[in-house]
Amino acid sequence: MTAAALPPGATLGILGGGQLGRMIAIAAANLGYRCHIFGPEADPPAGLVAAATTIAAYEDEAALAAFADAVDAITYEFENVPAATVEFLAARKPVRPGAKALAVAQDRIAEKTFANDQGAETAPFRAVDDRAGLDAAVKALGLPAVLKTRRFGYDGKGQAIIRTVDDIEAAFAAMKGQPAILEGFVPFTAEISVVASRGVAGDVAVFDPVENRHSHHILDVTIAPAPGLSPALALRAQTIAHDLLIALDYVGVLAIEFFVTGDGRLLVNEMAPRVHNSGHWTIEGAETSQFEQAARAALGLPLGCPIRRGRSVMLNLIGDDARAWGRLLLAEGAHLHLYGKAEARAGRKMGHVTRVLTDDTPAEAAIASLRRAIAGA
Amino acid sequence: MTAAALPPGATLGILGGGQLGRMIAIAAANLGYRCHIFGPEADPPAGLVAAATTIAAYEDEAALAAFADAVDAITYEFENVPAATVEFLAARKPVRPGAKALAVAQDRIAEKTFANDQGAETAPFRAVDDRAGLDAAVKALGLPAVLKTRRFGYDGKGQAIIRTVDDIEAAFAAMKGQPAILEGFVPFTAEISVVASRGVAGDVAVFDPVENRHSHHILDVTIAPAPGLSPALALRAQTIAHDLLIALDYVGVLAIEFFVTGDGRLLVNEMAPRVHNSGHWTIEGAETSQFEQAARAALGLPLGCPIRRGRSVMLNLIGDDARAWGRLLLAEGAHLHLYGKAEARAGRKMGHVTRVLTDDTPAEAAIASLRRAIAGA
Repeated sequence: MTAAALPPGATLGILGGGQLGRMIAIAAANLGYRCHIFGPEADPPAGLVAAATTIAAYEDEAALAAFADAVDAITYEFENVPAATVEFLAARKPVRPGAKALAVAQDRIAEKTFANDQGAETAPFRAVDDRAGLDAAVKALGLPAVLKTRRFGYDGKGQAIIRTVDDIEAAFAAMKGQPAILEGFVPFTAEISVVASRGVAGDVAVFDPVENRHSHHILDVTIAPAPGLSPALALRAQTIAHDLLIALDYVGVLAIEFFVTGDGRLLVNEMAPRVHNSGHWTIEGAETSQFEQAARAALGLPLGCPIRRGRSVMLNLIGDDARAWGRLLLAEGAHLHLYGKAEARAGRKMGHVTRVLTDDTPAEAAIASLRRAIAGA
Repeated sequence: MTAAALPPGATLGILGGGQLGRMIAIAAANLGYRCHIFGPEADPPAGLVAAATTIAAYEDEAALAAFADAVDAITYEFENVPAATVEFLAARKPVRPGAKALAVAQDRIAEKTFANDQGAETAPFRAVDDRAGLDAAVKALGLPAVLKTRRFGYDGKGQAIIRTVDDIEAAFAAMKGQPAILEGFVPFTAEISVVASRGVAGDVAVFDPVENRHSHHILDVTIAPAPGLSPALALRAQTIAHDLLIALDYVGVLAIEFFVTGDGRLLVNEMAPRVHNSGHWTIEGAETSQFEQAARAALGLPLGCPIRRGRSVMLNLIGDDARAWGRLLLAEGAHLHLYGKAEARAGRKMGHVTRVLTDDTPAEAAIASLRRAIAGA
C-alpha cells in the first residue's frame, strides 16, 4: 500500500447521486468503505445505498466545506461539476480524478486538442465563437458537419447536424450563443470505447475495447469485446487510453470513445473522466468492475484485475423499457440492474441488463433474446 | 410474475443489520428495490447501504408497527428473531421465510425431529431438561457426546463436549439451566452444506453442495463444489434440501449443514432459515448470489439461476485477519468483502475473500495463497 491508501472504514465522497454514483457507492461498500453523496437533486438514487447524503447546490460553500470535513477522499460521477467546486474541495481533501482531467474533458476543443497533442487522431474540428466563425469553419471542413456546444453536452444534447448550407442558421441558433465546435462528419464503421483506470501509485488497468450502438443519441447496446475489431486496432485503442492516462497524471476511471473508420483509423470522439455507461458490463463481465476501479483509485488503493470473464452484452433500459423487469428477471443469463429512479420519463436511463457469454452463443443472438424480453414479444 | 411480485421501487424490510442483512440490501438495491433495516444495535453495518434504518428493540411494538407500515415485505438475517416479533409483523406484511420455518430452526430438537420426519438422518439425540435427563441421555447415546442449548446457539456458542463422565457436571453447568440437547458424537470425514432457495411461486433453486472447514467453531473456509463428494451424495444432499423446502412450504433461502460419515451417510447437523456464511462464495461464484435469491424470494420475485461460474474458495476474515486488506486487494483473483464493522474484536467476522477458479488451479493451492496474503508471509 502507498501512504495514500485509505483504510476500510474511511468515507468516499461522491459528487452526483445518479446511477453512476450509486454503483460506485455499492462497489466501495463491498470493500468496507462508507460513502457520502453530494448533489443538488432531491432523492438521489445513490443516496439509497450510501451512509450519508447531502442535498445542496454545487455553489453552496458551507455545505461543501462540511462535506469535505466528513469525507476522506472525493470523486464524481459526471464531468460537469463546476471547476470552482472541485477547486474548493481539492484544497481540503483529495479529489480524484483531478482538476486537470476535468478541465480537459469539460471542453470539446481542449479535449480534442489534448488528444491530438498526444498523437491520437480526432475528426477535424474548428472552434466556433460567432456566426462568421461558423461560416469559416463550414468552409474549412466542408459539409456535412456537426455543430456542438463546447461544454455541457451529453447523450446528443447540444448538437445539431449541418447537412447543407440551409441548415446553418438553425444549427447556429440551437447553440443559443454558447461557444461551439464544428466537427467534420466522419463516416465510421463502428463506435468503440475503452474504459481505463489508473491508481495513485501509477498502476494502470485497461478493459478491453467494446462496441457501442446508440439509439436516438443514447447508448443502446454495448458488446464486449468489440466484435470484428482487429487485434492491432484493439491494442492501439488501449495504448491511446494508456497514454492519455499518463499524460493527464490521471487517478481514476477514464472512458474514451472512438470512431473506427472504414480505412482502419481510430478517431477519438469524446473522453469522460468517470465511469461510463459503456463499462456497465464489467460488473458481471470482468474480474473487477469499473465501479470498483473508480472506488479503489479515489481511495488510493491499487487497482483490480480488469480481465473479462467471457464475452458480454449490455442493453440499456430507457424509459418504459424498465417495465420489462418481470421478464428480465427470468431471461436467460440476464443480470438486471435498476437504478431506483421513481419516474420513468422518456429517454431516461432507468437501468441496464447484462448477459455474460461463456459459450459460443453469438452476441447478436443474446442481444435479440434480451430485446424480446424487453419488448414482451 | 405472480400477483405477489413487488415492483422495483418497493421496500424490503430486513430484521438484523449485520453483514448478512448488508449483503441482502446490496443485492436488493441492484434490482432497484429500497431496503429498510430494523435491529437493536447502534450503527448497523447494513444501515450504511440501506435507504432507511430503525434502531429499536425487537419487542418495541410501536417501532415494529411503523416499520411494517414503511415496508412492503420483510425478511431477516438471523434465526433468533423472537417468534412474537415475527408474529406481530406477519399480521401486517409478508414475512419470508415464515413463522413455521423459524420455529423449526430455532429449536434443535424440533429441527432434528423435523429432518428425521422427512426421511433425513441426523446424529442420535435426546432432549435434556434436567440433570437426571442428562445422565439418562449419556447412558442412551454413550460418550463422547455434545451437549448444546436447544435454542440461540451459533458458532459453537452454548456447546460443551462431554468426553468422559467427569465432564458431565461442567457441561451441565455451562447450559445455565436452559433446555438442552445431547447429541451423539459422530465421526465424520467432512462437513458440507447446501444453500437452497424457494420462491413464492414454488420455484426451487439449489446451489451445489460445498465443503466447510471450521476453526475454533467458526467457519474458516468454504470450497465450492465440495471436493471429493460423490455425485450420488451431492445429489442426495440437494434432494434433502429440496424436500425440506417443500415440507416447510418455505419461501426464502435455507441453509442445511451436513456431516458426511466415513460410511457414506449424510447427517443433517443444522438448518438456518436465512442466507449463510457458507454461501458467500455465490456473490462471484454463481450466476445469482444467495443474497439476490433471498431478496427475490422475499419480494415475491422468481429466483435466479444458481449455476456456478467455476470452482470457488471462500475464506472468512476473523478479527485481525481484516488487517490484511491491503495485501488482499492485490492477491491473485481475490474478491475482498469487508462488512464496515468499526471494531475488529477477536472472533468477530469482519469480512471474507472469495476466489473463483476457472482453470485447473487446485482449491488447496488457492486457499494457501490467500492464507499467505492474510498472514503477510
